[in-house]
Amino acid sequence: MNDKEIWERMMSGEIYDATHPHLIQKLEKTRELLYDFNNCRPSDANRLKEIISFVLGSHKKFFQINQPFHCDYGENIHIGNYFFANFNLTILDEAEVRIGDYCFIGPNVSIYTACHPLDSENRNKALEWAEPVTIGNNVWIGGNTVILPGVTIGNNVVVGAGSVVTKSIPDNVVIAGNPAKIIKQTD
Amino acid sequence: MNDKEIWERMMSGEIYDATHPHLIQKLEKTRELLYDFNNCRPSDANRLKEIISFVLGSHKKFFQINQPFHCDYGENIHIGNYFFANFNLTILDEAEVRIGDYCFIGPNVSIYTACHPLDSENRNKALEWAEPVTIGNNVWIGGNTVILPGVTIGNNVVVGAGSVVTKSIPDNVVIAGNPAKIIKQTD
Amino acid sequence: MNDKEIWERMMSGEIYDATHPHLIQKLEKTRELLYDFNNCRPSDANRLKEIISFVLGSHKKFFQINQPFHCDYGENIHIGNYFFANFNLTILDEAEVRIGDYCFIGPNVSIYTACHPLDSENRNKALEWAEPVTIGNNVWIGGNTVILPGVTIGNNVVVGAGSVVTKSIPDNVVIAGNPAKIIKQTD
Repeated sequence: MNDKEIWERMMSGEIYDATHPHLIQKLEKTRELLYDFNNCRPSDANRLKEIISFVLGSHKKFFQINQPFHCDYGENIHIGNYFFANFNLTILDEAEVRIGDYCFIGPNVSIYTACHPLDSENRNKALEWAEPVTIGNNVWIGGNTVILPGVTIGNNVVVGAGSVVTKSIPDNVVIAGNPAKIIKQTD
Repeated sequence: MNDKEIWERMMSGEIYDATHPHLIQKLEKTRELLYDFNNCRPSDANRLKEIISFVLGSHKKFFQINQPFHCDYGENIHIGNYFFANFNLTILDEAEVRIGDYCFIGPNVSIYTACHPLDSENRNKALEWAEPVTIGNNVWIGGNTVILPGVTIGNNVVVGAGSVVTKSIPDNVVIAGNPAKIIKQTD
Repeated sequence: MNDKEIWERMMSGEIYDATHPHLIQKLEKTRELLYDFNNCRPSDANRLKEIISFVLGSHKKFFQINQPFHCDYGENIHIGNYFFANFNLTILDEAEVRIGDYCFIGPNVSIYTACHPLDSENRNKALEWAEPVTIGNNVWIGGNTVILPGVTIGNNVVVGAGSVVTKSIPDNVVIAGNPAKIIKQTD
């Protein structure tokens, strides 16, 4: 499978070989850029913006991502306007992670798209697939939340700190817990 | 609102504008100091103590905070004697965080005071408020615990690893879970 | 108690004085090595392998540990072949942590062996003990999982992201939650 084919296969959501040299090479390239980002003086705001703009798939005019930040490819992450993420955001972006406007993310939040087979025989062959994560507008994600592959979070949602979000969430709700459940409406 | 007024407003627990230039400037100053702290060789114990003493609001004679450490202002954090915090403590100290003597904190613990409105219209205007966290004497907080704004934890309390502490906790208990619940007395 | 005796006492699972100079000295030595590991350019793969091989008690031919990585002594960690750990693994290895072949660990996972007394009088004297953690072959540990002292995880186990594993787990199961419970068989 050539470089274009393995990338398209991963992005399609089908099972792919995570050891393909093209993927490893891309992961390593992003890791170098994030090394520069995470080791940059916080006062060098221009350089931080420059690096992170290069890493992300797309962003709007206003956004802030505090150091440290970890992701896999970066180019599959698309953030809306007025995006704010506090310390130690982790995004495994083997599939697209699309986030709307006015999304506020607390410290130590993790967003995962990468899936491994439950049967160890296939898992040990480094076969993987990935499911996209979509987050709407006006969403506040409390600190130490984990968002699992395939989850869609609606608009005007508040996610309580320490939540593990295993299922998609409709508009206008507050959720919390492990697994996260709806605890009330935001209106 | 001038510099003194916005700071007093934040510390009073009232709703304030989190984009006030004075607050941003103070956050940036602390971030520079923590960059120095987190990038210092662990063998340079004197320099580590010097930086962290300058960041914290107050401390007693004996304390240890392992790298990395993240906080917002730092000056609202007051720790007692024989304080120990392991790797990757995060404290958002928009309100006071007061911790007694002999508090032992496991790795990857987060203490939050910052609150955002549930309605997105006000939240998107960067309106925030903060609620203090108070922790008594002789408290062991297990790794990966999250402590939420407004929580008071009593004396002689043990918090099980991975707890999400959403409510205040009396003296002499062991708590665990998400949300954390009392599971037994410590005596 | 001399250097050999305090180390043997810690490793035996008995109560020991965590402030013994020999233990502090060993902790500091590992911290220096991990400083080098965590601050090394990710492209300098040879140096990363060299440092981590020196830190770990033992490893097999194929393994990868992403930066950053935190542990206490390092020499009590024994990993099998085809070990993979993503960003920000924390291991407190006051007792042995033995991990089989084909273990895949997501980001922000913590493995703890260190225990403190529940009664604060003894805890405040820095008396501790440690209980080993054992993980079988073909185990996938989802991101943000916490594994507690004394836990044994069997072969062919999948641990859902955000789990807090408080008890030992048999072969061939999927577990999740806080505390983690068996939710199905892997076969």
